[in-house]
Amino acid sequence: MIKSDEFETKMEDYNKHAILGVKQPLVLECGVSLNNFPVYYQTYGSLSEKKDNAILVCHALSGDQFLAGVNPTTGKVGWWNLVVGPDKVIDTNRYFVICTNILGGCMGTVGPKEVNSETGEIWGSNFPMITIQDMVRAQALLIDHLAIDKLFCVIGGSMGGMQVLEWAATYPERVLTAVPIAAAAQHSAQNIAFHEVGRQAIMADPNWCGGNYYASDIFPDRGLAIARMVAHITYLSEPSLQTKFGRRLQDRESITFGFDADFQVESYLRHQGSTFVDRFDANSYLYITRAMDYFDLSERFDGGLAEAFRGSKTRFCVISFSSDWLYPTSESRMVVHALNSVAASVSFAEIRSDKGHDSFLLDEPEFWRVLRGFLSGSADYFGLDEFS
Amino acid sequence: MIKSDEFETKMEDYNKHAILGVKQPLVLECGVSLNNFPVYYQTYGSLSEKKDNAILVCHALSGDQFLAGVNPTTGKVGWWNLVVGPDKVIDTNRYFVICTNILGGCMGTVGPKEVNSETGEIWGSNFPMITIQDMVRAQALLIDHLAIDKLFCVIGGSMGGMQVLEWAATYPERVLTAVPIAAAAQHSAQNIAFHEVGRQAIMADPNWCGGNYYASDIFPDRGLAIARMVAHITYLSEPSLQTKFGRRLQDRESITFGFDADFQVESYLRHQGSTFVDRFDANSYLYITRAMDYFDLSERFDGGLAEAFRGSKTRFCVISFSSDWLYPTSESRMVVHALNSVAASVSFAEIRSDKGHDSFLLDEPEFWRVLRGFLSGSADYFGLDEFS
Repeated sequence: MIKSDEFETKMEDYNKHAILGVKQPLVLECGVSLNNFPVYYQTYGSLSEKKDNAILVCHALSGDQFLAGVNPTTGKVGWWNLVVGPDKVIDTNRYFVICTNILGGCMGTVGPKEVNSETGEIWGSNFPMITIQDMVRAQALLIDHLAIDKLFCVIGGSMGGMQVLEWAATYPERVLTAVPIAAAAQHSAQNIAFHEVGRQAIMADPNWCGGNYYASDIFPDRGLAIARMVAHITYLSEPSLQTKFGRRLQDRESITFGFDADFQVESYLRHQGSTFVDRFDANSYLYITRAMDYFDLSERFDGGLAEAFRGSKTRFCVISFSSDWLYPTSESRMVVHALNSVAASVSFAEIRSDKGHDSFLLDEPEFWRVLRGFLSGSADYFGLDEFS
Repeated sequence: MIKSDEFETKMEDYNKHAILGVKQPLVLECGVSLNNFPVYYQTYGSLSEKKDNAILVCHALSGDQFLAGVNPTTGKVGWWNLVVGPDKVIDTNRYFVICTNILGGCMGTVGPKEVNSETGEIWGSNFPMITIQDMVRAQALLIDHLAIDKLFCVIGGSMGGMQVLEWAATYPERVLTAVPIAAAAQHSAQNIAFHEVGRQAIMADPNWCGGNYYASDIFPDRGLAIARMVAHITYLSEPSLQTKFGRRLQDRESITFGFDADFQVESYLRHQGSTFVDRFDANSYLYITRAMDYFDLSERFDGGLAEAFRGSKTRFCVISFSSDWLYPTSESRMVVHALNSVAASVSFAEIRSDKGHDSFLLDEPEFWRVLRGFLSGSADYFGLDEFS
């Protein structure tokens, strides 16, 4: 058993999951049907009797279901431990928080490194291409499984925010409030370009073996590390890199006239790469980045993005960060404009921060104030019970 | 013989070079001495009798000495053919333009793929680390060899601009005017980070073989292509990528739910990568990016960057582009502030452009007007003869 301040994640809880697609398969956007597939998830707090206090948190590309307390696989605190917990911004004394490992992920939910229940073999590169909509539909099956009709809130940052938008568009009646953070309604050319570099790095690694490397003990770690390194640069702002590292040297007095990590920023990036491969699957990285590239919510609707939200009663709170150049404020503003144009309920906050895209994971009091206020006001609006 | 509109580059001219470091070696910053090394170069226009009309153009990371006319190695026009030529902005009717392949390059000048004249073997990863200052000192030896005392102008974009700053700091008496374009006086943490990703991609390629791959016919092409892809993203602005490619598909009606280049931007990047490896050496890429990372002109001078220019009589024209996020205007402004603080002669222009860092290579009439005006005014100021 691993303890943190607030949550004990028992090892048996690590395996908390549901087998979905049993009575009928989940038909993916690509046309492939998934039967009897596991979705792994974690919950924090307690579901109210009325089942009206559920918040679904959608994780980002490299996230997982262990958002609070200690992640039993890494031994580190969860990726949103700053935000989710008793008396925190998403207060688990009040709300029942659910987080699922996404479809295509590598923390238990069906994905390329899992066994295909029909063949008994590891999926590998036979895993079908999944989309953001597929991820959301799998989550909806889990919410059904938990016998929850409506979600008080669906919230997430980055790719999590894409899932939020997809939830609001696909299941408007089931989403009372939606909080897409540092996200976009479609992947830009630059977004696709950076992902493509990462994918090429993985696929160029001879250990990738066309995606079927699981039988060996050798994984495409170098390729995956490079993919992580380039992505990580995009998660930070230029000023934050400059403040954090500048041109400071790593454990040395002067440059070595060589290719070692002379600079702290190099050492940091290499560390980001090498630790990532311990917890992430290279094929999952390929599939999930592709799902993000394919995401274009407006494309499915004649008349564009606004039509995705026409008639919606969901209350939206769109949040961006001023120094986020991966999903800049202009992308959030496009979502806000679309919502405004169909008279949806939307508030919008651009948080001033120099921490870049990753701001939503970091200590950002202004962001937290906005989020706390929106949730609290919405809880009043929808008549949630006071704190138990 | 290959013809273009303005210049005929005869195949024998391809081999235009000087052997330098003959009487005494060039002692590099790392301490290694280079003897009897070739520097390859091209010239355009004619040197005046007074030898007062020479312009040294410094090329960028992936550039070479073939800046105008047709590049005989690629069959394409040179990288600055838009700017340099008869009646063009840098008018070869008036000016004598020199461009050298830089130290560490791969177009003839000594670098990792060339033979070490002392051992008779290819340098490979035994090539010593070079710096921007080393590049400039080698260029100065060539200028000596051409019996030119003073350069009317030293000009270059990107890493070429770093060389310009280095020239002005190291040989102030030899530089009448200096035009650093889209450059910086030091590499930022983000600059270093992107380069480190590229280097890791090359060094992760099993064909790199520790840098000693020349004996085989197999080169680290995939690694080098990935390095080029990630770098290329940084050369373009987000809006220019969006305008040029957006989410348009490549020769297909709909996405394929796979990892092919569904999007035009992916196809474009892959093309950039695969064509680059035909003309560039992976080790040169490692060495040159490292030289850029090491560049920090202020570090050598007590009191910082301004001291690099104290007492300089050089006339500076610093040029940046509004959408350049690799070497943003703020970096150029730091150079301008340093020059101002020692009362140097400096004019500064931020050119409004949405084309990103590569603007200096592209059709940018405002940039050209500024440059033409500065050169023409400076020619008058320094009493250059009128057009012959």
